[in-house]
Amino acid sequence: MDLVIKNGTIVTASDIYRADLGIREGKVALIGRDIYADEVIDASGKYVFPGFVDPHVHLQMTIGGITSTDDFVTGTIAAACGGTTTIIDFVDPKPGESLQEAARKRREQADGRVAIDYGLHLTATNALPQTLEELPILAKEGYTSLKLYTTYPALMVEDGELLRLLKAAKSCGILPVVHTENHQAVEFLKQELLDEGKIEPRYHPRSRPPLVEAEAANRVLALAGLVDCPVYIAHLTCLETLEIVEIARRRGQEVYVEVTPNHLLLSEEEYERPGFEGAKFVLSPPLRGKRNQEALWLGLADGRVQVVSTDHCPWNFAVEKQLGRGDFTKIPGGMPGIETRIALLFSEGVRRGRISLNRFVEVCSTLPAKLFGLYPRKGTIIIGSDADIVIFNPDKEVTLSYKDLHQNVDYCPFEGWRVRGYPDIVIAKGKVVFREGEFVGEVGAGEFLRRI
Amino acid sequence: MDLVIKNGTIVTASDIYRADLGIREGKVALIGRDIYADEVIDASGKYVFPGFVDPHVHLQMTIGGITSTDDFVTGTIAAACGGTTTIIDFVDPKPGESLQEAARKRREQADGRVAIDYGLHLTATNALPQTLEELPILAKEGYTSLKLYTTYPALMVEDGELLRLLKAAKSCGILPVVHTENHQAVEFLKQELLDEGKIEPRYHPRSRPPLVEAEAANRVLALAGLVDCPVYIAHLTCLETLEIVEIARRRGQEVYVEVTPNHLLLSEEEYERPGFEGAKFVLSPPLRGKRNQEALWLGLADGRVQVVSTDHCPWNFAVEKQLGRGDFTKIPGGMPGIETRIALLFSEGVRRGRISLNRFVEVCSTLPAKLFGLYPRKGTIIIGSDADIVIFNPDKEVTLSYKDLHQNVDYCPFEGWRVRGYPDIVIAKGKVVFREGEFVGEVGAGEFLRRI
Amino acid sequence: MDLVIKNGTIVTASDIYRADLGIREGKVALIGRDIYADEVIDASGKYVFPGFVDPHVHLQMTIGGITSTDDFVTGTIAAACGGTTTIIDFVDPKPGESLQEAARKRREQADGRVAIDYGLHLTATNALPQTLEELPILAKEGYTSLKLYTTYPALMVEDGELLRLLKAAKSCGILPVVHTENHQAVEFLKQELLDEGKIEPRYHPRSRPPLVEAEAANRVLALAGLVDCPVYIAHLTCLETLEIVEIARRRGQEVYVEVTPNHLLLSEEEYERPGFEGAKFVLSPPLRGKRNQEALWLGLADGRVQVVSTDHCPWNFAVEKQLGRGDFTKIPGGMPGIETRIALLFSEGVRRGRISLNRFVEVCSTLPAKLFGLYPRKGTIIIGSDADIVIFNPDKEVTLSYKDLHQNVDYCPFEGWRVRGYPDIVIAKGKVVFREGEFVGEVGAGEFLRRI
Amino acid sequence: MDLVIKNGTIVTASDIYRADLGIREGKVALIGRDIYADEVIDASGKYVFPGFVDPHVHLQMTIGGITSTDDFVTGTIAAACGGTTTIIDFVDPKPGESLQEAARKRREQADGRVAIDYGLHLTATNALPQTLEELPILAKEGYTSLKLYTTYPALMVEDGELLRLLKAAKSCGILPVVHTENHQAVEFLKQELLDEGKIEPRYHPRSRPPLVEAEAANRVLALAGLVDCPVYIAHLTCLETLEIVEIARRRGQEVYVEVTPNHLLLSEEEYERPGFEGAKFVLSPPLRGKRNQEALWLGLADGRVQVVSTDHCPWNFAVEKQLGRGDFTKIPGGMPGIETRIALLFSEGVRRGRISLNRFVEVCSTLPAKLFGLYPRKGTIIIGSDADIVIFNPDKEVTLSYKDLHQNVDYCPFEGWRVRGYPDIVIAKGKVVFREGEFVGEVGAGEFLRRI
Repeated sequence: MDLVIKNGTIVTASDIYRADLGIREGKVALIGRDIYADEVIDASGKYVFPGFVDPHVHLQMTIGGITSTDDFVTGTIAAACGGTTTIIDFVDPKPGESLQEAARKRREQADGRVAIDYGLHLTATNALPQTLEELPILAKEGYTSLKLYTTYPALMVEDGELLRLLKAAKSCGILPVVHTENHQAVEFLKQELLDEGKIEPRYHPRSRPPLVEAEAANRVLALAGLVDCPVYIAHLTCLETLEIVEIARRRGQEVYVEVTPNHLLLSEEEYERPGFEGAKFVLSPPLRGKRNQEALWLGLADGRVQVVSTDHCPWNFAVEKQLGRGDFTKIPGGMPGIETRIALLFSEGVRRGRISLNRFVEVCSTLPAKLFGLYPRKGTIIIGSDADIVIFNPDKEVTLSYKDLHQNVDYCPFEGWRVRGYPDIVIAKGKVVFREGEFVGEVGAGEFLRRI
Repeated sequence: MDLVIKNGTIVTASDIYRADLGIREGKVALIGRDIYADEVIDASGKYVFPGFVDPHVHLQMTIGGITSTDDFVTGTIAAACGGTTTIIDFVDPKPGESLQEAARKRREQADGRVAIDYGLHLTATNALPQTLEELPILAKEGYTSLKLYTTYPALMVEDGELLRLLKAAKSCGILPVVHTENHQAVEFLKQELLDEGKIEPRYHPRSRPPLVEAEAANRVLALAGLVDCPVYIAHLTCLETLEIVEIARRRGQEVYVEVTPNHLLLSEEEYERPGFEGAKFVLSPPLRGKRNQEALWLGLADGRVQVVSTDHCPWNFAVEKQLGRGDFTKIPGGMPGIETRIALLFSEGVRRGRISLNRFVEVCSTLPAKLFGLYPRKGTIIIGSDADIVIFNPDKEVTLSYKDLHQNVDYCPFEGWRVRGYPDIVIAKGKVVFREGEFVGEVGAGEFLRRI
Repeated sequence: MDLVIKNGTIVTASDIYRADLGIREGKVALIGRDIYADEVIDASGKYVFPGFVDPHVHLQMTIGGITSTDDFVTGTIAAACGGTTTIIDFVDPKPGESLQEAARKRREQADGRVAIDYGLHLTATNALPQTLEELPILAKEGYTSLKLYTTYPALMVEDGELLRLLKAAKSCGILPVVHTENHQAVEFLKQELLDEGKIEPRYHPRSRPPLVEAEAANRVLALAGLVDCPVYIAHLTCLETLEIVEIARRRGQEVYVEVTPNHLLLSEEEYERPGFEGAKFVLSPPLRGKRNQEALWLGLADGRVQVVSTDHCPWNFAVEKQLGRGDFTKIPGGMPGIETRIALLFSEGVRRGRISLNRFVEVCSTLPAKLFGLYPRKGTIIIGSDADIVIFNPDKEVTLSYKDLHQNVDYCPFEGWRVRGYPDIVIAKGKVVFREGEFVGEVGAGEFLRRI
Repeated sequence: MDLVIKNGTIVTASDIYRADLGIREGKVALIGRDIYADEVIDASGKYVFPGFVDPHVHLQMTIGGITSTDDFVTGTIAAACGGTTTIIDFVDPKPGESLQEAARKRREQADGRVAIDYGLHLTATNALPQTLEELPILAKEGYTSLKLYTTYPALMVEDGELLRLLKAAKSCGILPVVHTENHQAVEFLKQELLDEGKIEPRYHPRSRPPLVEAEAANRVLALAGLVDCPVYIAHLTCLETLEIVEIARRRGQEVYVEVTPNHLLLSEEEYERPGFEGAKFVLSPPLRGKRNQEALWLGLADGRVQVVSTDHCPWNFAVEKQLGRGDFTKIPGGMPGIETRIALLFSEGVRRGRISLNRFVEVCSTLPAKLFGLYPRKGTIIIGSDADIVIFNPDKEVTLSYKDLHQNVDYCPFEGWRVRGYPDIVIAKGKVVFREGEFVGEVGAGEFLRRI
């Protein structure tokens, strides 16, 4: 063995046990007791988690002339420092650009500049024949998921396009990941608010209320039902949408639900912060009333919600967010979170008894890996899996602050929150990448993941 | 009194009682016992119902170069002979035509050629400023309802248009009447079936399954919820849509539901008839599986369904329906029914114990009158209301046949059905228009109703 | 005509119209315009309502050695002064007493001492053969409803008894009226609270939470489903029970729901009043959180709730309620309301746009009359019905106070509430019984109603 | 290592991977590749499952003078031959017997006579102080679950008892396992059927319809909600109960659901078999209509159902079942199944695509182990767990017949069913107990499991 992690408590989606973990050539090679190796890490009193998988991040995403503030370098370093050893970002083709071309360019941006392994979802903005033909080709190259938007003019597809894309996705085993908000409704409500002079961040949630989200979710699920295609609902936020999902499941549909720490832990009260502070919390769908948080936690615990991702999409408050001063609809939507997900979920989820330790691993690592074709390489600790490992100190206390985090953004939505439980050491493919609070890995060590 | 109806059992939406009914100048003028008049009709052993209101008919509707086979003359005669003394038809503007112009032309087609009073729903096929401006003007002229389609290329409106139309309707007290089917889904499914060579009528229901209807209903209700506008769902057919309506009501929305005798009494098995016979039953949304019928009857009984209309839209089997031989998507959609609604509802509803006598009157007369601004002139028997009266023999047995009916169409979907209970005499505005099986009224006696 | 009410606006469950109302020999005899009579009441600008029916009152009910403070004299006078011209009280047999004997005794208490007509529900406290045999006999004598309790040791029946009683009721056309709370759960929770020293009125709602009510309702509806018997749920209070009712209806059961002004308008916050004041609001099931009120109003508006009764059961705060000082479980349960129902429902329901004028009449008069076999004698204004009439001034403003009310009790739960709309004149069987704020009728004029 | 299983595909609730499995001293000791041991089993092309756990069996259960036909010897041999290496049976105290005394006697029956490890659920038939006091004592001794019945006179507890038992269970970490059917309803329906001369087996399901089960489930969940106690619903069979469970979960309750292969795969049509054959399928709750099967499979797949057990309770058709000739209520309730569960679930569940391979292991092994305090000793394959292993040939085809099975009963409900996939070798605590179709283990090798 090249490395052995001794005396830790290994936790997977279903198991918890004491054992030594032997690593060889970047893979988990042996699990047992009293394993010998040249290098030893003592994990007594620590949890040994599979590296966490964040299947929804937006690094150096350019939109409307601005670019999200974490690039592949800073973003993957921040991920690693937070316990995430795999991310899935997006291929967003420009108008007229083919998916293959866009994928190639995106790979160019990332390859050699990532600290951890990464995958890419495709984003389809049309259902032209060429697009449909590219899907099976790209699926074979490891792009086995497809982001679809029901809003945003540059990205959205209409119902007929959705149907063709869902059918095509189904036929080549691609999983659709859908952002569900009714575009026309959002446009209408925004205009109404602006016409009434309601321009502050506090009006953002009123421009995208729960019905707007639940409507689009119901529509997408109905269309998917017609072509018998599974659907992954990105960042579900509210009771109304959850009810829609349950109805679809009762009629036999395969539906997966993703939530984010933002929607689990923050409420629409944040928009009432003085001045322009609310802009820090502008994202879509927006933060909701507190009853929704409770429902999301219940769903996470009892199996109705499958994944916790971050939808990390950082904008500096002092710079990009300021574009929306005077018009909340111009505030770039998105919040940072790639580095804080694991600590928050452990403290607020596991410690508070809302979810079990196994479930924590399942929704933050195993299910994202399985749903997106990364398993068994990622998402678990078994013989042959990548040695992506988080040695986690359940008692380490940290006060979150943007100053200490590695995210390249000038605020943290959870500024000042105290968490208990934090990664001690993070290992990616057998190499230590985070230790004593610092990134110690190598930019460029991450690879593109051909997902299955 | 000009006329007295003696010894009958008067039935309204809420009452049943024995009394004489005095009519003067076409109005109900006196209710009591032992009323004297020059002319007397003895109604011993008969029910005295308010004239029935059919709020959803399509007479001489031209679409795709063909015209529905009942014009205002034959259609209103058939209505009268079946106990219906008020209909509401539609103003369907041609491309580029203003609503006001279309309304004027539609009035020209009908005025002087109707045997009974009639109203007109507007149909909006766009949300252009001119259209929105016309709505309050036309509302004041008695067009207080607005048909909206989510399917049919010539008619449908998109979500943004829907929102503006719903908002405009709300602001001037117009009730939206919505045909809910997802257009893109229908197009997609039709194409798939045709591509597989599935061209017979039996494939019609598979091109418009329940999810297609329920999706559009949910979308319309969500949008209406955003602008706080009531909605009347035309011809709801299935459990899935009913569930959606219940969810909307629980969140406080005002939703009205219409069903038709076709969907209450016939099932998708009709499409399995040999040869091209299934074409007789092609309508949209299509006939459904039998479990849905049971659910519609329950909803009708317990108050979740408000109206039974006919959606009368007749095409001759030997002529127009033949257009779809070789391609079910070209079968003109629609079925006759304007004359048989009341007899069917009484026999199959009241006699079988599915609905009460009061509820029968309520859903076939009072609620359509109230929801569409005809009350108290229509829909009930009270002092001052129009003397539209059906003297109904609960024991008269009739075998339905297109040969005996007055509908101008070469088939009856209920051919050979035996009903028990049939109108003896029908009175419109104080004049007998139907007696001994024959129309004895006057074409041209009907008037346009300015609805409130 | 003996009396004519001129120029009023007659309102029934389904109609609203201007007409004169002719009364002869205590009955509605003629409806029209310009009717002549010896005595005329001008109702210009007033509503002419059918006398209201309160199907759930407890006058001079003796329980645990104390007697509710309104006897048949004061209680029926108070009812009349509030616009209620018919009540239905209860026959509560003593241990070992036959239903027939108990009914005879209860008749003795009431006959000659009631100001308005009254009926009596039976209460079955067992399902012994004798009891089951008495039901059809008493049904023929006009006792066509049967109160059943799932709690209170002296009254409650077990599931097996319930089944036999529901089956027997079904077979002789008796409607079961059920108080649904799980007795063992209430006893358990009460004991837990007392064991923790929680003795104040504020703990009352915690001893009977919504689940306790919804559980019993579900049980009763399941049992009724097995024997195909309709059920009337008395004083439903919460969302949880309403959901249970909707499930039962969807499977085809006939279920009626009653609510009270207390649960519509007051919340559990009342229990937090200082000192022992909360005891004034102790009733079972208790007042609930505000979300439930909204749901009850919605149900009332859209047809899921059928009746508003009072469950009038007054105890003086200074006397009987004091029995529970030091132990909330000993507070006599019940609140007054027989006189304030109509004014409250009109002000808070009709005026605030929560229910329509027709629906107001329907739930306070017509449906109670119909469901309990009083129709068409009571519950409406039609030829031949009793001339029970409320001439109601929609603009009269009154501040409610126990000092002004005729209820024989030392407090009013709505003390200080300002209502707009109040009865001007109340007529029972053709005789004015209330005018200018005073009872002007005759004690003893009321009769026992043989219900059908 | 004492034994190594080489080249197999290890499957746990969350993982699937190729590895060798080293066993030492009856425990899993090493997982890796190329492990050396004295004894080697080649598992190429086979699945290596954790031994399956059947948490609901009734061996040598005496009731009404007869004893279920599998005793601890034959029953545990049959279990082992079917791939089940752990069972949980019951301690059913006799009237007046303490739980501790009953547990001691039950241990005497089993110890030394079991081929595999076993646990025991307690059964509480009362909530007397002594019983409540015994619970924490017995919990410490490994009896950490408590069967409660809402039916069967000898076993059932009333609501008040239920509350006290649920509260006591909660306080000492005992999981209640509840058989939910409304006793009084069953008694009533049985009597009605017998009174009508309906004595054949086909009437069994009509004496215990879905509402009877769903009612009791709702009641138990409501009561559990009041004391915040988790509940495990034994053998749920129908849509109605599943809806109740979902409502409870939405309000935050912890509910686990168990189903059996009988209810997943057989329908009430079995009761229509000629002659007395239907008696073979008499169990409670009964087999249901086919729509329910579909719903149970969906719930199993999407996580709403947690466990598949057998409720194995065999009676010979030629002997005990004959007691009910002439009166279906006297047919001993119960069906065999301890040996066929795994083969059926694999063939009908995994092979038909209804559930995944991981889910199969989860519901048949891991979750039963976790919920009942056997994990991590049982239910998975991790370092330190018992070496209970099933080497499963996914392609082995077997036609089920009672003649070939080891169950001591004269029929198999699945007689003639062809399964594909069957255990090749079964290992219990490191020893092979089943090989080449025969039991090769040792009676007496099984131990009592102190559950946590």
